[in-house]
Amino acid sequence: MTGSKARQILDMNAYRPAADGAAAADPALARRLANVGAAAVLFYDAPIQMVAGEGAWMIAADGSRYLDFYNNVPSVGHTHPAVVAAVQDQIARLNINSRYLSPVVDDYLEALKAKLPADLSNIVLTCSGSEANDLAMRVAARASGGTGFVVTRNAYHGNTAAVTEISPSAFKRGAPADHVAQVPEPDPALFGTADGAGLAEGFAAAVRQAIAELAARGHRPAALVCDSIFSSDGVHADPPGFLAPAVAAMREAGGLFIADEVQPGFARTGDHFWGFGRHGLSPDIVTMGKPMGNGFPMAGMAARPDLVAAFCEDVGYFNTFGANPVAAAAGHAVLRVIAEEGLQANAATVGAHLMSRLRDMAARDRRISAVRGAGLFIGVDLEHDGAPAPDLATAVINGLKREHVLIGAAGRFGHTLKVRPPLCLGPDEADIFADALERVLAKT
Amino acid sequence: MTGSKARQILDMNAYRPAADGAAAADPALARRLANVGAAAVLFYDAPIQMVAGEGAWMIAADGSRYLDFYNNVPSVGHTHPAVVAAVQDQIARLNINSRYLSPVVDDYLEALKAKLPADLSNIVLTCSGSEANDLAMRVAARASGGTGFVVTRNAYHGNTAAVTEISPSAFKRGAPADHVAQVPEPDPALFGTADGAGLAEGFAAAVRQAIAELAARGHRPAALVCDSIFSSDGVHADPPGFLAPAVAAMREAGGLFIADEVQPGFARTGDHFWGFGRHGLSPDIVTMGKPMGNGFPMAGMAARPDLVAAFCEDVGYFNTFGANPVAAAAGHAVLRVIAEEGLQANAATVGAHLMSRLRDMAARDRRISAVRGAGLFIGVDLEHDGAPAPDLATAVINGLKREHVLIGAAGRFGHTLKVRPPLCLGPDEADIFADALERVLAKT
Repeated sequence: MTGSKARQILDMNAYRPAADGAAAADPALARRLANVGAAAVLFYDAPIQMVAGEGAWMIAADGSRYLDFYNNVPSVGHTHPAVVAAVQDQIARLNINSRYLSPVVDDYLEALKAKLPADLSNIVLTCSGSEANDLAMRVAARASGGTGFVVTRNAYHGNTAAVTEISPSAFKRGAPADHVAQVPEPDPALFGTADGAGLAEGFAAAVRQAIAELAARGHRPAALVCDSIFSSDGVHADPPGFLAPAVAAMREAGGLFIADEVQPGFARTGDHFWGFGRHGLSPDIVTMGKPMGNGFPMAGMAARPDLVAAFCEDVGYFNTFGANPVAAAAGHAVLRVIAEEGLQANAATVGAHLMSRLRDMAARDRRISAVRGAGLFIGVDLEHDGAPAPDLATAVINGLKREHVLIGAAGRFGHTLKVRPPLCLGPDEADIFADALERVLAKT
Repeated sequence: MTGSKARQILDMNAYRPAADGAAAADPALARRLANVGAAAVLFYDAPIQMVAGEGAWMIAADGSRYLDFYNNVPSVGHTHPAVVAAVQDQIARLNINSRYLSPVVDDYLEALKAKLPADLSNIVLTCSGSEANDLAMRVAARASGGTGFVVTRNAYHGNTAAVTEISPSAFKRGAPADHVAQVPEPDPALFGTADGAGLAEGFAAAVRQAIAELAARGHRPAALVCDSIFSSDGVHADPPGFLAPAVAAMREAGGLFIADEVQPGFARTGDHFWGFGRHGLSPDIVTMGKPMGNGFPMAGMAARPDLVAAFCEDVGYFNTFGANPVAAAAGHAVLRVIAEEGLQANAATVGAHLMSRLRDMAARDRRISAVRGAGLFIGVDLEHDGAPAPDLATAVINGLKREHVLIGAAGRFGHTLKVRPPLCLGPDEADIFADALERVLAKT
């Protein structure tokens, strides 16, 4: 059941090859399937060929424009001129590994550190959030002496062998290994009262139980790993601070708290630059990725120097492409754009507007059972006769595609629309989405 | 002993912080150490600040030029204009994940497939060679039903948790886990006669013994994983074909052959585009990385479609930055430059000239005990009174730095100079290196 459930979530808006093995009619699609095979992961039954992007928009091969409400990688906007210029400039100067010194790299690391808790003063840059989490798991295991990890049951933290084990949503068959214990997603409906009053203690109790499960299997805990907006679990943001007692429970048991900021980090939640800020937490390790370079492949781990030093006593860690000056230039441009364009405040303002439109819709349409989120990360639950309605989510996603709005789904049942536009989104663009959603729901 | 040995190899030309914890005198170095901590990996006791690059040269902050004989990432030359232009152009158009179709991506995949054995027709692009090997290990385990891996005892295949286990040279303490068996490096001196006559069968026998060791520990073999130029093992290229019986031995035992082409791939060895070509082999899986995008973070795994399909039945694999169109544009430009500038032939020609210069030197200097390699990947063993001389290697590396030539070391004892310049190297530049090496050896 775990397997089929996870499969369903991953595939909610995915292209599915014909069951009879028939070749794809679209030659562009047939090429991709021939080139990548079963590892091809594509959106929609008729995947779209994209050729350009600008702000919150992508332009397809046929010249039509799509509003991107899915993508948190080009977070300051597709082909943002400042990021593009930074990459164009640096790649023409020097692109080299970090064994040589470069002020471009250290200027960036210092700008990034200025956004982080002061004690997380060592940063290891990597190429992907998966690499950052893979490293963070080992750093936490070394520091804690533990081998066990606690994650939410629909978590996704990345794609390496080690990180896949703490990503239950990646499993199509089977389940994570013995050293991983799962807790339910922090949905107020599952813990305490609907207004979230019991959530903090309920979620902490679930973490304590998971730690006990690990102990029963012979594992001391290494860390609680949370995406602090609980993206793949369906987006759970409220009440602010609910995560703190769970973190305290893990620390009491000797484990660390790894804040996976690949999803909520870099100003998306509006109220704070990082998702853990919403919960008043100071993580032991912070990992970051997707929006960090606005699409330039880069990611990283920030940790206390003592944790990094202990890990490095056992094993060398060098990342060839990590901390190259082109990545640093891209990342630094992203930080500057967020500050100069006030994108954190924009995420708060436009996010609130979007939330208001969605809640208005929910008041008029009983199929919308919940609207949750923070800033420009919003989850919209769809149900039918009181039950989660993944088929409705799929219909809405495909209906929105016909309206040229791109969106995805998440959550345990795949019935949560994942509303995650670039941070540069304007209120007019928020309305384009909301209007389209209204039209689609009216027709569905 | 394994640990201290590996430590020595990694650190041969590395910066070492002061034992008394004194702050670095160079402010640029002090910044880096403050920003990255113990995970900072730097070259030389006084790391160089680099600001620009061109062809085989890097330019330091003081304006002086260094000849790069170490770096196999900017393989077609630092800031090659065709690769720079491809990245500059595509990043201004669109940089998006592979869930949408893009002719830029499929044009590249087809160009890359044209360089690979026809049966390896599925390519999964990743961000790093580590990610590619991490994936390949799981694909091989799924296909073989085995859990064991055989690698050389100084192998380095990457930095994820899983790949570190098959990278004995990464261990500063301890050793790889039970499911990894090590074989000696394929040095003719260790197997059969000095002319390499017994090497093929001797190395195959070592692999069979490793498989037996795995069986004794309860592991069926999943794969033999080889960097087919054996870079971190000290560069072992001859006689061509020596690797074939070892691969046959692994296949007889039910395991696969993963050719890690991160080091020898993309025309470096001169005689073939891939390192496995030198051995007349058809791998089950090929992984690639470093030179693939001339520094743009990208890597990949090519495999038979049946292997990819089996893996994807169990677990989803999606790589956010992998197969983005900017990486594809960079990778495609690299393939074009290699073809248009005849870099494979250049690697053969200039490599032969370099080898000839080095062998002349060896005939006159008994401290040079061996010169091995293929194309522009050459290992030069240094010894003193018949014993490996890592201290001499360190002295030579630092002497060459003073001559503004950058080079590294490898091998079990760290006494092998690793001669690995960009493929665009001209004969005049080969002579600059060889002349500098002669001067340094004369003074050392």
